[in-house]
Amino acid sequence: MNFDSVIHNCTIITVNPEFDIIEHGIICIKDGRLEQISTKTHDQELPDSKKVIDAKGGIVMPGLINTHTHLPMTLFRGLADDLPLNTWLNEYIFPAEKKYINPESVRYGTLLACAEMLLSGTTTCCDGYFLEEKVAEAVSDSGMRAVLGQGVVDFPAPGVADPSENIKAAIEYAEKWLGVSPTITPSIFCHSPYTCSTRTLKDAKAAAYSKNLVFQIHVAETKQELNQIQSEYRMTPVEYLDSIGILDANTLLAHCVWIDDHDIEIIAKRNAKISHNPESNMKLAAGVAPVPRCLVSGITVGLGTDGCASNNNLDLFQEMDTTAKLHKVISHDPTVMDAKSVIIMATIGGAKAIGLGNETGSIEVGKQADLIIIDTDKPHLTPLYNPVSHIVYAAQGSDVRDVLVAGKILVRNRKLLALDLDDILEEVTKISKLISSKI
Amino acid sequence: MNFDSVIHNCTIITVNPEFDIIEHGIICIKDGRLEQISTKTHDQELPDSKKVIDAKGGIVMPGLINTHTHLPMTLFRGLADDLPLNTWLNEYIFPAEKKYINPESVRYGTLLACAEMLLSGTTTCCDGYFLEEKVAEAVSDSGMRAVLGQGVVDFPAPGVADPSENIKAAIEYAEKWLGVSPTITPSIFCHSPYTCSTRTLKDAKAAAYSKNLVFQIHVAETKQELNQIQSEYRMTPVEYLDSIGILDANTLLAHCVWIDDHDIEIIAKRNAKISHNPESNMKLAAGVAPVPRCLVSGITVGLGTDGCASNNNLDLFQEMDTTAKLHKVISHDPTVMDAKSVIIMATIGGAKAIGLGNETGSIEVGKQADLIIIDTDKPHLTPLYNPVSHIVYAAQGSDVRDVLVAGKILVRNRKLLALDLDDILEEVTKISKLISSKI
Repeated sequence: MNFDSVIHNCTIITVNPEFDIIEHGIICIKDGRLEQISTKTHDQELPDSKKVIDAKGGIVMPGLINTHTHLPMTLFRGLADDLPLNTWLNEYIFPAEKKYINPESVRYGTLLACAEMLLSGTTTCCDGYFLEEKVAEAVSDSGMRAVLGQGVVDFPAPGVADPSENIKAAIEYAEKWLGVSPTITPSIFCHSPYTCSTRTLKDAKAAAYSKNLVFQIHVAETKQELNQIQSEYRMTPVEYLDSIGILDANTLLAHCVWIDDHDIEIIAKRNAKISHNPESNMKLAAGVAPVPRCLVSGITVGLGTDGCASNNNLDLFQEMDTTAKLHKVISHDPTVMDAKSVIIMATIGGAKAIGLGNETGSIEVGKQADLIIIDTDKPHLTPLYNPVSHIVYAAQGSDVRDVLVAGKILVRNRKLLALDLDDILEEVTKISKLISSKI
Repeated sequence: MNFDSVIHNCTIITVNPEFDIIEHGIICIKDGRLEQISTKTHDQELPDSKKVIDAKGGIVMPGLINTHTHLPMTLFRGLADDLPLNTWLNEYIFPAEKKYINPESVRYGTLLACAEMLLSGTTTCCDGYFLEEKVAEAVSDSGMRAVLGQGVVDFPAPGVADPSENIKAAIEYAEKWLGVSPTITPSIFCHSPYTCSTRTLKDAKAAAYSKNLVFQIHVAETKQELNQIQSEYRMTPVEYLDSIGILDANTLLAHCVWIDDHDIEIIAKRNAKISHNPESNMKLAAGVAPVPRCLVSGITVGLGTDGCASNNNLDLFQEMDTTAKLHKVISHDPTVMDAKSVIIMATIGGAKAIGLGNETGSIEVGKQADLIIIDTDKPHLTPLYNPVSHIVYAAQGSDVRDVLVAGKILVRNRKLLALDLDDILEEVTKISKLISSKI
């Protein structure tokens, strides 16, 4: 068989169900999918292929999956930090969104996010924002895989001045993007139980259900939200959402910081998914989600960075390291959230959380060739006893040398092949000058 | 005046007492020191200089200072992770040290550490280990600035088989290195109150005091240590050390996780210094040091990575990000440990903590030209509203383009100029193969 690409000279972290690690690996790709995964035996010739990629002894693993972000918010990276949550939101982020979020800024903010994600090894993301058709166009242009949800909130929002039109706009966007791009899956992103009425939540979920879309929602992010929902409905946010029929296997709950054992039981029973965003939760002092307990309960958990206004980057390598260390110190147990568990969350766990578990998130025959090659020939990755712990505790996004999505090379030797980076940086810088002159 | 080097086209984070940020900065260097720091006015010509470094619009800041590490332990990076503390120490780290720490491995482990530190923007470190003369030779060869302490512990240790000789060995090492190298300052590193007798602690401190050396010690790292010292002496570790005269302005206390308000009062009164190592404390599940309270009490605190066996890298950029976020979430307050405070800890705070506050740690006329230039022309550093928050929340060690120590360029365009990186990686890999075959 003549393959399209063959990757060789690598250690493969497959993240398959056996979590196999393959030394001297060979990966063969045809029509964008993984056709053959094997170990090179001595003197074996490489299979016939149009393209041969020498991984130079590096690590190949599934591309990372960012299960919660707001891509255009790269425009606000570092605009306001170290502030009380309400000051940050009401005096900086909301006014900046109101004034500067428009189709063009959304396009460039998203392209910047894609450039950053690809260069740090993320091949798939799950986004929720406004003017999502512009997000979808930009992500599609970048070649990345994504689940992209038009935002629904009971306030006037960029692109939808009248909140009563929000669900209609979300449905129109989803219909337009269903089946259009091989890498883009539309979704609906309902902002939260405290910014959407029961009616809005139910209607948005009904719309998502009818089209089999992932329904994304922020849940139990802050203590304030927990208190507010409890005082209004005499239920926790998770109990409340369950009581109105929001939770099922296609529901992705972002944050879940303030959930208790009963909430965890409900989420597990409904097979709803969680996106864990530790760095954003730390930076905004929201709290620490009880993720180890969720995993024990069998809940599928993916990792997310959240938007760049609260992180301030989209680097999942840093997020993996923080995840492992944060849960160890919080639980007083250095064996908690080991490197393998964290890698699973950042890859196949994330893929399952956003409904793409059969397509991406692991290196298995038949799956999409969404891969990253990590250059381990560096001081901070030497020596190499254990590639798994290296990925979580020592590697950085900048160690990613090559990136493939659906078999297409999007980053080669740290150069973006499908995006004009100079143009993106120039345009975003222009937009940021407007923002900083008027905020 | 004809300068040796001029750096221009940069934003300078001075970390001077006013924390001045200088746009369009010019830095003039002569004989290894900062001679002139100014803003370039329109049409102004650059001062005469043998060498001109164009920072290309990047950020120039003081080189970072790692106040606590064990350099040769790079050899054990990733050897054992996610284990209970005692298993990790007794089944992996101690046996590996016993078998594989020798003058040659110490040299290569240290050179690897220096390569990694320089490439991630650290210009000064404070180390405590064994066979420290080999550490000193290697660090001196690298061109880095360092305070290096020979280890003292009441067990047989690499290079000192008989514990009763430990203090003598530490003194001999210090005498040999006092005033020998312009960048190396000897020190004494007493391991901890639970591994050294009262006699050892007092004698080691007396030796350090007589030569005006920094006295380093691990203190109150784990709950177990606190319990042990309390049960043995009916005092906290800090109270105990104070009761035997160990604490003064030349004492550097590493970790200080399990300290209470009375301990903080004692440390402040004695003007002893603290090295804060959040990532190591998280990874080993030791706990979170009450650093915000220490800063309020006026204690000088520096940042440290600890050794590579418990982190697993020496990257202070990641440590800064984690420090800011960890204390926010622990204290439920997003305004705690703001970016400015964290940068101070990683630079001038660290310099003061290791007795070099008059020499390095800030960009001020008369100080050593220990500088790093950060390339901000990258997706994850765009846009740039605030260079201070960018350094803490968005930048990575790999964004450091150029590094100077005492005016000498040690890294240029991410290439190490004074070290043979290929040789170091090759030799360390050879050593690691021995280690992994026998552990």
